[in-house]
Amino acid sequence: MNQLPFWPLPAESDLLRLLEDDVGFGDLTTRALGIGHMPGRISFSARAPMRLCGVEEAAGMLALLGAEIGFSAASGMDAEGGELILSVTGPASVLHAGWKMAQLVMEFASGVASEAADIVAAARAVAPNIAVMVTRKSVPFARTLSLKAALAGGAEIHRLGLHDSVLIFPEHMAFFEDGLAGAVMAARRVAPERAVMVEVTDEAGALAASMAGADVIQLEKFTPEAAAALARTLPKRSDGRPFIGAAGGVTAKNAAAYAAAGVDTLVTSSPFMAKPRDIKVVLEKA
Amino acid sequence: MNQLPFWPLPAESDLLRLLEDDVGFGDLTTRALGIGHMPGRISFSARAPMRLCGVEEAAGMLALLGAEIGFSAASGMDAEGGELILSVTGPASVLHAGWKMAQLVMEFASGVASEAADIVAAARAVAPNIAVMVTRKSVPFARTLSLKAALAGGAEIHRLGLHDSVLIFPEHMAFFEDGLAGAVMAARRVAPERAVMVEVTDEAGALAASMAGADVIQLEKFTPEAAAALARTLPKRSDGRPFIGAAGGVTAKNAAAYAAAGVDTLVTSSPFMAKPRDIKVVLEKA
Amino acid sequence: MNQLPFWPLPAESDLLRLLEDDVGFGDLTTRALGIGHMPGRISFSARAPMRLCGVEEAAGMLALLGAEIGFSAASGMDAEGGELILSVTGPASVLHAGWKMAQLVMEFASGVASEAADIVAAARAVAPNIAVMVTRKSVPFARTLSLKAALAGGAEIHRLGLHDSVLIFPEHMAFFEDGLAGAVMAARRVAPERAVMVEVTDEAGALAASMAGADVIQLEKFTPEAAAALARTLPKRSDGRPFIGAAGGVTAKNAAAYAAAGVDTLVTSSPFMAKPRDIKVVLEKA
Amino acid sequence: MNQLPFWPLPAESDLLRLLEDDVGFGDLTTRALGIGHMPGRISFSARAPMRLCGVEEAAGMLALLGAEIGFSAASGMDAEGGELILSVTGPASVLHAGWKMAQLVMEFASGVASEAADIVAAARAVAPNIAVMVTRKSVPFARTLSLKAALAGGAEIHRLGLHDSVLIFPEHMAFFEDGLAGAVMAARRVAPERAVMVEVTDEAGALAASMAGADVIQLEKFTPEAAAALARTLPKRSDGRPFIGAAGGVTAKNAAAYAAAGVDTLVTSSPFMAKPRDIKVVLEKA
Amino acid sequence: MNQLPFWPLPAESDLLRLLEDDVGFGDLTTRALGIGHMPGRISFSARAPMRLCGVEEAAGMLALLGAEIGFSAASGMDAEGGELILSVTGPASVLHAGWKMAQLVMEFASGVASEAADIVAAARAVAPNIAVMVTRKSVPFARTLSLKAALAGGAEIHRLGLHDSVLIFPEHMAFFEDGLAGAVMAARRVAPERAVMVEVTDEAGALAASMAGADVIQLEKFTPEAAAALARTLPKRSDGRPFIGAAGGVTAKNAAAYAAAGVDTLVTSSPFMAKPRDIKVVLEKA
Amino acid sequence: MNQLPFWPLPAESDLLRLLEDDVGFGDLTTRALGIGHMPGRISFSARAPMRLCGVEEAAGMLALLGAEIGFSAASGMDAEGGELILSVTGPASVLHAGWKMAQLVMEFASGVASEAADIVAAARAVAPNIAVMVTRKSVPFARTLSLKAALAGGAEIHRLGLHDSVLIFPEHMAFFEDGLAGAVMAARRVAPERAVMVEVTDEAGALAASMAGADVIQLEKFTPEAAAALARTLPKRSDGRPFIGAAGGVTAKNAAAYAAAGVDTLVTSSPFMAKPRDIKVVLEKA
Repeated sequence: MNQLPFWPLPAESDLLRLLEDDVGFGDLTTRALGIGHMPGRISFSARAPMRLCGVEEAAGMLALLGAEIGFSAASGMDAEGGELILSVTGPASVLHAGWKMAQLVMEFASGVASEAADIVAAARAVAPNIAVMVTRKSVPFARTLSLKAALAGGAEIHRLGLHDSVLIFPEHMAFFEDGLAGAVMAARRVAPERAVMVEVTDEAGALAASMAGADVIQLEKFTPEAAAALARTLPKRSDGRPFIGAAGGVTAKNAAAYAAAGVDTLVTSSPFMAKPRDIKVVLEKA
Repeated sequence: MNQLPFWPLPAESDLLRLLEDDVGFGDLTTRALGIGHMPGRISFSARAPMRLCGVEEAAGMLALLGAEIGFSAASGMDAEGGELILSVTGPASVLHAGWKMAQLVMEFASGVASEAADIVAAARAVAPNIAVMVTRKSVPFARTLSLKAALAGGAEIHRLGLHDSVLIFPEHMAFFEDGLAGAVMAARRVAPERAVMVEVTDEAGALAASMAGADVIQLEKFTPEAAAALARTLPKRSDGRPFIGAAGGVTAKNAAAYAAAGVDTLVTSSPFMAKPRDIKVVLEKA
Repeated sequence: MNQLPFWPLPAESDLLRLLEDDVGFGDLTTRALGIGHMPGRISFSARAPMRLCGVEEAAGMLALLGAEIGFSAASGMDAEGGELILSVTGPASVLHAGWKMAQLVMEFASGVASEAADIVAAARAVAPNIAVMVTRKSVPFARTLSLKAALAGGAEIHRLGLHDSVLIFPEHMAFFEDGLAGAVMAARRVAPERAVMVEVTDEAGALAASMAGADVIQLEKFTPEAAAALARTLPKRSDGRPFIGAAGGVTAKNAAAYAAAGVDTLVTSSPFMAKPRDIKVVLEKA
Repeated sequence: MNQLPFWPLPAESDLLRLLEDDVGFGDLTTRALGIGHMPGRISFSARAPMRLCGVEEAAGMLALLGAEIGFSAASGMDAEGGELILSVTGPASVLHAGWKMAQLVMEFASGVASEAADIVAAARAVAPNIAVMVTRKSVPFARTLSLKAALAGGAEIHRLGLHDSVLIFPEHMAFFEDGLAGAVMAARRVAPERAVMVEVTDEAGALAASMAGADVIQLEKFTPEAAAALARTLPKRSDGRPFIGAAGGVTAKNAAAYAAAGVDTLVTSSPFMAKPRDIKVVLEKA
Repeated sequence: MNQLPFWPLPAESDLLRLLEDDVGFGDLTTRALGIGHMPGRISFSARAPMRLCGVEEAAGMLALLGAEIGFSAASGMDAEGGELILSVTGPASVLHAGWKMAQLVMEFASGVASEAADIVAAARAVAPNIAVMVTRKSVPFARTLSLKAALAGGAEIHRLGLHDSVLIFPEHMAFFEDGLAGAVMAARRVAPERAVMVEVTDEAGALAASMAGADVIQLEKFTPEAAAALARTLPKRSDGRPFIGAAGGVTAKNAAAYAAAGVDTLVTSSPFMAKPRDIKVVLEKA
Repeated sequence: MNQLPFWPLPAESDLLRLLEDDVGFGDLTTRALGIGHMPGRISFSARAPMRLCGVEEAAGMLALLGAEIGFSAASGMDAEGGELILSVTGPASVLHAGWKMAQLVMEFASGVASEAADIVAAARAVAPNIAVMVTRKSVPFARTLSLKAALAGGAEIHRLGLHDSVLIFPEHMAFFEDGLAGAVMAARRVAPERAVMVEVTDEAGALAASMAGADVIQLEKFTPEAAAALARTLPKRSDGRPFIGAAGGVTAKNAAAYAAAGVDTLVTSSPFMAKPRDIKVVLEKA
């Protein structure tokens, strides 16, 4: 977790979009009670151990609103239960305006990051060099924050999109007439700077992909046992390839089992819908 | 579910944003295999019964890519298991480009809509007139689609933001010196066109809010039993108020219990992180 | 006026949009005369007493252009005639580039704020607790700045949009078959967290709305006399409702008359097209 | 008025911005009453004679919402009192959603266009070849629609910004040391493809500008009489220049007087804050 | 060239941006001459043989302005000298407004596409399976159109960004202490789904990269002769790797020489600054 | 070059757009090697003499990424060969992320600025008062940076768009029936604040334009000799007009010849496709 700063940068325009949705014209309740000018402080702390993310976004929103940042942790750090994450002072109007959205962003992003970190930890306890990759299946419109959180959790990105990698699905082969070896060869010719990945749904498919020269064989919804059986027998080339990736249903619960199966990579979507991690908020008069 | 069309409209710019993230420069695999020009068809169908949402977005993306829409259901409709949702034809380059994002949007949005519909159904089986409201705690940046999906599920929106309603939290009272009755009075004077809501965390707080003249008393993390005890004893005014809302941890599982407790409103965030509903895809040569 | 800061925040992107429209490639005249590098100062002061608004936007634009802010008042403050509002130094190229747009934003926004403040003052001189609300009818595309200015003037916001409140128009009733009491009941069931407002155009309508249980009765284009007649006779519930709002043609000139009529709320669009308040500019060599 | 289409084009993204502000999540009242699916029609007609503008925007918004356009006039056309401008059918949910914003855009833009048309008509009745120009002082953020409306009214645009023309203000001369003749010469050398305009505040200034070789002399806040005195005596070059422009306080009321004074151009900001023109709306069951 | 449609799609918002810059408020000259309503036609044809690109964007802009498309070729097609590319009818106001920007987009994009096609043709005449890749060094802000044009020319994309591939520069090694073999190993572990590319500047570097296990060795500014010497001697693994790429100064003129040298890939920036291809325009009365 | 700051300002949103395209999720290579946290420095210097532009954009991007700016030159300055332009420190993750895009922006913009400066210098060596104007034909989507660079090179802007000037093309006259004198008169009446420019393609056309009263006669693709012949004979009015502009194929190579021909203005597109100027980068451990 020593690779700061975390990308992507929280753009002012994105933070303002979050704020506009939620508090474009201020907190009516604060205004109605006439308390907006009173000085206060707000602090956010972890209710349980978690991998942090979204802290820069939360602090950025509060700063845009006019608050003064007292203390701020950073995305990618681990927090103990009870540990302070962010502490801010400012007028009540500002603190009430920023409170919930700051909390929401940190809870969501730390949920993704923590689930990713849990998968990484579970897998690496068994196989220290295994790679954990998150898919493209993040919540629509939340991809940027979700991928940042996955990186903060120690995972890497499987594919940013269809344009940056070659992954041959059975649905591609439905249109291609020269067989899998022909497909791998075509892909290597057109995209020699990319690895050629092939998705397979059973052992026969995996062997065919291996014979065809695939660089990565992605096992779709194999059990850990089936993956292990394959990993034991699949011949490897001198460069260690084909690498074997397990995809479809990988979570923190079964990550160790897949890692023990001897695959090289775990490909997972589970962090994106992970339960948000609870953050305790104290908002009080200064 | 007879209130078409569903808002918000899927804006071309939003759909292009989703596509650009995922497939800005086409599917490299399709291009490498040289199959992009071949005609094909793709169909999406429900794996299990679900309340649909995101269909207009999915169809809109595929149409932007140049596909022809054959059949399209609509957000807000119920689909049986196996029922066709969307069917599209076009060249393989288009179908492969749009496939996953169309699926993802419908799976996510139908997940939200279905969870909302489940809560509504569970609650109304017990209390036919009860209202179900979703909070502001949707996934950051996905609020628009999430709220559309909640509406498609038959829920309503609790607050769009802090500027459109009055909800007095204990954290407001920390700054206000004239007591809760004074606060309700101030709110009613400043915002006479709004109902005055008060969040309470125990029965004493609820009674105080009632005495103070609140229009809505929002119970934060009451058990169904505690809510029922309160609902039985709290005096109502001639207009039926104060209404009682149950908030904090309300899900499809406990919705009936809260409804049976006699509260007027359920306030829930659970649809926003609901498990996506599986949609089966068949992509084949035409 | 003690509720700082004023929302919405002036976003850099909005300020740049104003500048790009007006001075994207610099002031050609300044460049042609070769005077751009010479140090200068510009000051803005009130020609007559006014409620200020747009000051943060004006200062923000000049700062983006590279000027140094010497003195700046704040939105929501009152300025005397002749009083300095904003004082800035920088090279002539910057001052000429920012001059007119800074002036325009402050003149427009202070015009809206001052008209709102005049209505509030006139009404509260007669009825100290009366509420003043501005409608949705702000100049298209200028809503954000217009509503900020209305808040700076001490008014509140009637509705941010159709999605955040219930207001039953006769045009709704044209489609609804169960009568006004049925409509109010339906609205209260679907939206228990919202007040139910009914627009009426004559006294009979107002009485019907009262009988139907409306929370707010909005009088469309009643004279002050007609409003007073109604206010004297309309029965109120224990919570003070139904509140009576006067809408349609309310201005600073007749606000006192409506306030004296005993209504609870004035609903007005007049600030949005108020005459801009004159601001004197001195731009000189430093 | 024979120059269709009118620019700028109403961009979908701009129209959606207007709708999102006002009705992002639908009309809650329509939804609460359960009437959204019922077919209806809405028609907009002129309450008094007016020059139309904003019709494409209004129709565009209603079409985006899903309505069917029956009849639509066009920006730049004149409407009689009572004349139909726009007629649309669709479900009640759509009509209620689009009603007020469609009306607002047309009322605002037709107000600007009609004031511009009134100034043009008043001036040309006296001086058929006189030009009418609108300034940069449109309502902040509403410039695009405002300038379209001015063009629809038959006016032209004075300057789009500081970068597209040369206009020497006294505030420029405060930094320039070689006198007005030197300034005009410098401007002509740097910007030979532009006319050189000089703003003057009295007759002596006008004569100096003439001597200096200005192409256009812009009279700031001259009375019609002072303008006439100047126009009678100021020598003209063979190409008809310097042209004389009257600026500062020109409105439909005094346009004829300025035109009779013999100036070549009227420069006005008054259309931008013109009273919106009333448009009658009928929304009914179909 | 059989992979339609070409990505990225021309977004309405991008096309409007181009038009707004150039013709936001119409063609003043057309308006001044009073000819805007007269029907006309405009045709665009190739002055010399070229690979087309930008046609969808040009047609899209003209359609947005209100013209009717008569004939339109497609990006990726070859045009002979004199061949018609696009033919459109509409009022003079529309044709004059869209003329230059439509021409500019097609001339620029066809210039990029044609240069890419020339490189591909020159290289494949010698080495039919060689791959041609364009770098990230497109004109700032024009990347999307530039990459589309490169694809239309038959090239592929080297890297979309730093996040989608591994390319070890000497500047990375300045910070890394475990040698190149350690770096390749680290990269393969962290990014097993990516090929590992290494940039080298001399033959010794290339051999070291080969020993270290690189998948692709990118030769920076090697002469064709030096590249050939290396290609003859560098040992290949069973999967054909390491592939050799020639980068730095590759153009249509030397592409054949590099291809003959036996490298696997050409990496080039030259299409991005290629001379625009001339397109003849006839704009006339219909 | 004494007119700072240069417009347009580099907007954060534009800089982030460049970065997102290139490095949205960080440099994968840096991350894979685990070197991101190590302190480093990067310096950019001119390989040969050049007129600088894009420096603010480059520094702005690096600062957004979190680097510290040590030294920065400014757009519009001249750099000697070897001269330092920009020097920055920060962690390796930041420096690798910003390196190439910062270099690209400065190389492109300095290429445009230097070519413009070369044209200005060549022309003014012969004719010290001649004006150099750049056309609208900049690379699509790169107009803002391109025009800034042209200004930094000492050129001016011919037309920002069709809406800000009058330039009568033969293609306009195809629709206009009252002859060129009628056209000039019409333009002067509608747009008295603009100069009237006429494009001509031969000497007869130029004389006709002169007779018609044009303010500027734009010679399309005249040779320097033909331009000189015309300039010697064309009668001028007392204000020095009609000015003669040479357009079509003007470059740094022939600028002196055109200047010597006695034209008043050079109108050129050549800077926009000028070869980028090489900038040397040193990125090393600190």
